[in-house]
Amino acid sequence: MTKQKEISSAVIARLPRYYRYLGDLRDNGVERISSLELSRMMNVTASQIRQDFNHFGGFGQQGYGYNTEYLYAEIGKILGLDHKHNMILVGAGNLGSALIKYMNFRNRGFYFKAAFDINEALYDRQIAGIDVYPMERMASYIRDYSIDIAVLTIPKAQAVKVAEVLSGCPIKAIWNFAHTDLNLPGRIKVENVHLSDSLMRLSYEIHRYEESVSEQNSAAQAEEN
Amino acid sequence: MTKQKEISSAVIARLPRYYRYLGDLRDNGVERISSLELSRMMNVTASQIRQDFNHFGGFGQQGYGYNTEYLYAEIGKILGLDHKHNMILVGAGNLGSALIKYMNFRNRGFYFKAAFDINEALYDRQIAGIDVYPMERMASYIRDYSIDIAVLTIPKAQAVKVAEVLSGCPIKAIWNFAHTDLNLPGRIKVENVHLSDSLMRLSYEIHRYEESVSEQNSAAQAEEN
Repeated sequence: MTKQKEISSAVIARLPRYYRYLGDLRDNGVERISSLELSRMMNVTASQIRQDFNHFGGFGQQGYGYNTEYLYAEIGKILGLDHKHNMILVGAGNLGSALIKYMNFRNRGFYFKAAFDINEALYDRQIAGIDVYPMERMASYIRDYSIDIAVLTIPKAQAVKVAEVLSGCPIKAIWNFAHTDLNLPGRIKVENVHLSDSLMRLSYEIHRYEESVSEQNSAAQAEEN
Repeated sequence: MTKQKEISSAVIARLPRYYRYLGDLRDNGVERISSLELSRMMNVTASQIRQDFNHFGGFGQQGYGYNTEYLYAEIGKILGLDHKHNMILVGAGNLGSALIKYMNFRNRGFYFKAAFDINEALYDRQIAGIDVYPMERMASYIRDYSIDIAVLTIPKAQAVKVAEVLSGCPIKAIWNFAHTDLNLPGRIKVENVHLSDSLMRLSYEIHRYEESVSEQNSAAQAEEN
């Protein structure tokens, strides 16, 4: 049993943000940073930062601050970014193509190896150097090329069937952009990016804010009368 | 003061998912559904569903189940989806273009009106019928065309400057895909979609799972010896 086992998902969810800030600091030549400075940049409390880091052994001495390079590398290791990940794209439409062309993933060790689509017209083309194959070849490709992650950018009507096929493959994770929830065996990890859900939360925030402003205005008017 | 004020962000974050499931049920002709049936579909407890809905007045009678159409419409109203939202795209690259072409947003009342980019080569083209303009025109366009939401699909180096310009505009919200956090006045709501963060969380889950499996194997082997 390692220490990491009991770490809450809230702490984990914050790690990529720490990693992002520390990467920026490192790129800007900042060698050491205190939890207080980091907390001001990130708009969280210094105590939260120290608590979060204590889950992983603390990473450095208080007073002296943290070594930026070391902390960046350590959090990267916790996130598994010291490993290379082979990915396939399932659904070579607009969003999928954009993800392939987004080079930042490659910088973090995530490599698209191939794309799969039901559209025959795509098979003789490449997307940023990546070949597009028929869906029927997906399962054997995963086996032959040690694919870790399948990125699903397909309509939700197709997602259930594709998830069934993937359930039988030695895939480790699915990055799901299809607008539906997937049922998969526990060994296959799923991270959902439901863009419409995100836009709806934004819509809620807009209207909640407008209501509160209009209520304040009414209250102010009522007081005047 | 309305009831909605005290609703936790966790409840709000769940509303789009309810909306999605209820939309599917409605499309499949299901007129009524009990909290128990819904809970099984959504893999949450019926008690959580009832608690969540109670924040908004309950939406229906227990025992009889919920009227799907009514519940769908009511949650849509809470999410502000009974309003139309005008959006602009800032950064007409691959990801931005894919978002414009994604028609589902339009079905939910979110309309892209224009795109803005620093790349002059894009100004005489359209993306799915949407014109691309120089960045300098953004602020006046927001004023002239009652834009609610700016969708930021620009590199993080540009995002800070664009956010400064947007701070002075009568914009209500920013849907931020730039890989950085934005500092904006409280009246402007921000929803971040940090794709790399999401991919890193997935990477963490993969490696956490692999470690736990290898620990179990070691423990089993130790017992055998």
